[in-house]
Amino acid sequence: MFQFNVSHFQGKARTGRLSTPHGEILTPAFVPVGTQATVKSIRPRDLLEIKSQLLICNTYHLYLRPGVDVISNAGGLHGFMNWKGPIMTDSGGFQVLSLGAGIEHGVGKTVKLFADSTDDSRVEALVDMKKSRGEIITKEKFCFVSDERIIFKSHLDGTFHEWTPEKSMEIQSKLGADIVFALDECTSPLHNREYTEKSLHRSHAWEERSIVKFRKLHNKAQEIYGIVQGGPYEDLRTESTKFVESHDFFGVGIGGALVNKTVMEDILDWVSKGLSGKKPVHLLGIGGIDDIFAGVEKGVDSFDCADPTRIARRGDILLSPDDGGTRKNRWRANIAVAEFRDDLTPLGINCGCPSCSEGFSKSYVNHLMWSRELTGYTLTTIHNLFVMEKLMAEIREGIAENKLEKVRERWMG
Amino acid sequence: MFQFNVSHFQGKARTGRLSTPHGEILTPAFVPVGTQATVKSIRPRDLLEIKSQLLICNTYHLYLRPGVDVISNAGGLHGFMNWKGPIMTDSGGFQVLSLGAGIEHGVGKTVKLFADSTDDSRVEALVDMKKSRGEIITKEKFCFVSDERIIFKSHLDGTFHEWTPEKSMEIQSKLGADIVFALDECTSPLHNREYTEKSLHRSHAWEERSIVKFRKLHNKAQEIYGIVQGGPYEDLRTESTKFVESHDFFGVGIGGALVNKTVMEDILDWVSKGLSGKKPVHLLGIGGIDDIFAGVEKGVDSFDCADPTRIARRGDILLSPDDGGTRKNRWRANIAVAEFRDDLTPLGINCGCPSCSEGFSKSYVNHLMWSRELTGYTLTTIHNLFVMEKLMAEIREGIAENKLEKVRERWMG
Repeated sequence: MFQFNVSHFQGKARTGRLSTPHGEILTPAFVPVGTQATVKSIRPRDLLEIKSQLLICNTYHLYLRPGVDVISNAGGLHGFMNWKGPIMTDSGGFQVLSLGAGIEHGVGKTVKLFADSTDDSRVEALVDMKKSRGEIITKEKFCFVSDERIIFKSHLDGTFHEWTPEKSMEIQSKLGADIVFALDECTSPLHNREYTEKSLHRSHAWEERSIVKFRKLHNKAQEIYGIVQGGPYEDLRTESTKFVESHDFFGVGIGGALVNKTVMEDILDWVSKGLSGKKPVHLLGIGGIDDIFAGVEKGVDSFDCADPTRIARRGDILLSPDDGGTRKNRWRANIAVAEFRDDLTPLGINCGCPSCSEGFSKSYVNHLMWSRELTGYTLTTIHNLFVMEKLMAEIREGIAENKLEKVRERWMG
Repeated sequence: MFQFNVSHFQGKARTGRLSTPHGEILTPAFVPVGTQATVKSIRPRDLLEIKSQLLICNTYHLYLRPGVDVISNAGGLHGFMNWKGPIMTDSGGFQVLSLGAGIEHGVGKTVKLFADSTDDSRVEALVDMKKSRGEIITKEKFCFVSDERIIFKSHLDGTFHEWTPEKSMEIQSKLGADIVFALDECTSPLHNREYTEKSLHRSHAWEERSIVKFRKLHNKAQEIYGIVQGGPYEDLRTESTKFVESHDFFGVGIGGALVNKTVMEDILDWVSKGLSGKKPVHLLGIGGIDDIFAGVEKGVDSFDCADPTRIARRGDILLSPDDGGTRKNRWRANIAVAEFRDDLTPLGINCGCPSCSEGFSKSYVNHLMWSRELTGYTLTTIHNLFVMEKLMAEIREGIAENKLEKVRERWMG
């Protein structure tokens, strides 16, 4: 049922086909985020129209609400959310360690990730920075990590929950996505070397427990990706890549790479050196247009990122090169600014997405944004996801025709 | 271009065809509300799929934001909002006199409507009732009415605006709806007889000025409805009906009837006695299922009401008799309650609306409501508007086949 076949290489970049029980995914692929079992403001029929191939849902959120049994009762996520195409779930580890730390208390994701860091001066520096921006900080701990388990407090109702690698596997099996991820601990470059190394070995132990449990569940409708961690340290990334490659994981996830462009490219470089090339590779939580080119060129096959949908809801529309998108403007324009008040052209003049081809103007969407009208969010979300699919289709075609550099040139300048 | 042809009567109830430059409307018709040039959370394509025939937009809201010139620049509302079917705009009078009175200050629509009432004891009683419910009250005046004009404060930015009947016509001409309404002053049963009578004569003077101005604008793409006011007083309603019938209005609007069921039925009775039967009749702001039967039986041809869409966004779904809707349950169920948490049946098992036939379950929509996910609002809005269209189609067929009482029996029990 699960297969990954590369049809063409250009350097390390590759195009292929990832087969799952719910359909085939042409790679490289962009993966829209459906955190709470819905891509915000749109319906599955819209995703089909945009030609989205694969969604990722968040285990942590769904575990807390509506709860695993509700989704299991509906036959898993596909039945529950009425999306019949392929789905991934993350392990929940990232959210447990960041969101679980209390977003409702105004704690930024980043700060709490480091609450357990041994490098207190770095944590303090970040706290000072957050305070200087007027962001509220609490240092109360909502998450306790040991080698055996994670104990965390729900951001919804304050209840405490205990997670182990085995439990993450059981939950993800019930959620029923096609692709699941092993439980890991996500670190960041603000963690020091000592903590990162200790954490990496804990992640590897958790991933081993994950795969043992996963294979015991005998859920033939799912496959599992391991996750490469190791922070910004070449030797740790190399060790971790070797670990994932040498274990019985169907695919390779690259975690903890959301730092800055330079470090991310280094990480991709180190990891790609250790990849066998046989397993599909997913870059977790990253999907900027430049990041996608950087990843594809190092052999990444799929990318998930909430940005295209998140920024849509504040009125930021993505622009392909056909509509003036460049690296300089970050392929974006904010539709809510005054200059678009009377602009009767579509969001993207040369776009062709359902929102643009149906005739909605910048002027109208500008009005909807100012009026906080929900239909506005639907229109911009559809537009942005369509631009991402356009990019990926061009990248796939570029690789197949050995002209990826032309696609890069067109988008990146 | 404009025509109204009744094809069949059953008693005073009638079915027919209202022709406008943007299409024909089969009557009796339900008119979804698109206050800010959008039916909240859905797109025109959804309205086409539901078979909605006619929308009503609010002049007051659109005048304040995005402003008349923005819409005029887009070729009027049809071009601006990308809905190619027929549109109505109200005169703005109701909102000016209620919302203009300061919704952002926590003032209920009703209270401020009566701020100018001479019957202070009634106003005070209402204020006491609101306070007992914990609603915030301000008695600061945001609206000043004279025979010549209305001066009101924007609920958005506090700026003052002056409206006359002539100005309402100019604005509505620029907005470009197919059907516009004359400017009137909307009273309520809490106004006393003296004020209601004085206000009615002012409304008639405004409506005369409205039609003079409207005809001068020579906008052949529009027609105008006069509005019958007169509160809960038979002689005033009779006088007002005669006024509207005897002037050059294409249609008759019935305003100020949103009181209680008994008074509304009295008003409809009094008004219907004075109707010539030649003009289409619209009941403003009313669209409960029982109200629609009451109206249709007195010769009303169209109804606008924000309830089906508004309640959708708090999780109330409408139920046709096929799904257990009765007068007793107000044809409603709240999808967010715990009993639906694991219910895998569609919102309406026998519904057939796009949301139900596509396979979204009560369990899923329950989750979306709890998670405040925008997609949930889209699904329930589509469902509710579809149920309204189902009702209206049955009513039209019932009249055409002389069996309206069977349709009534089916829905009302």
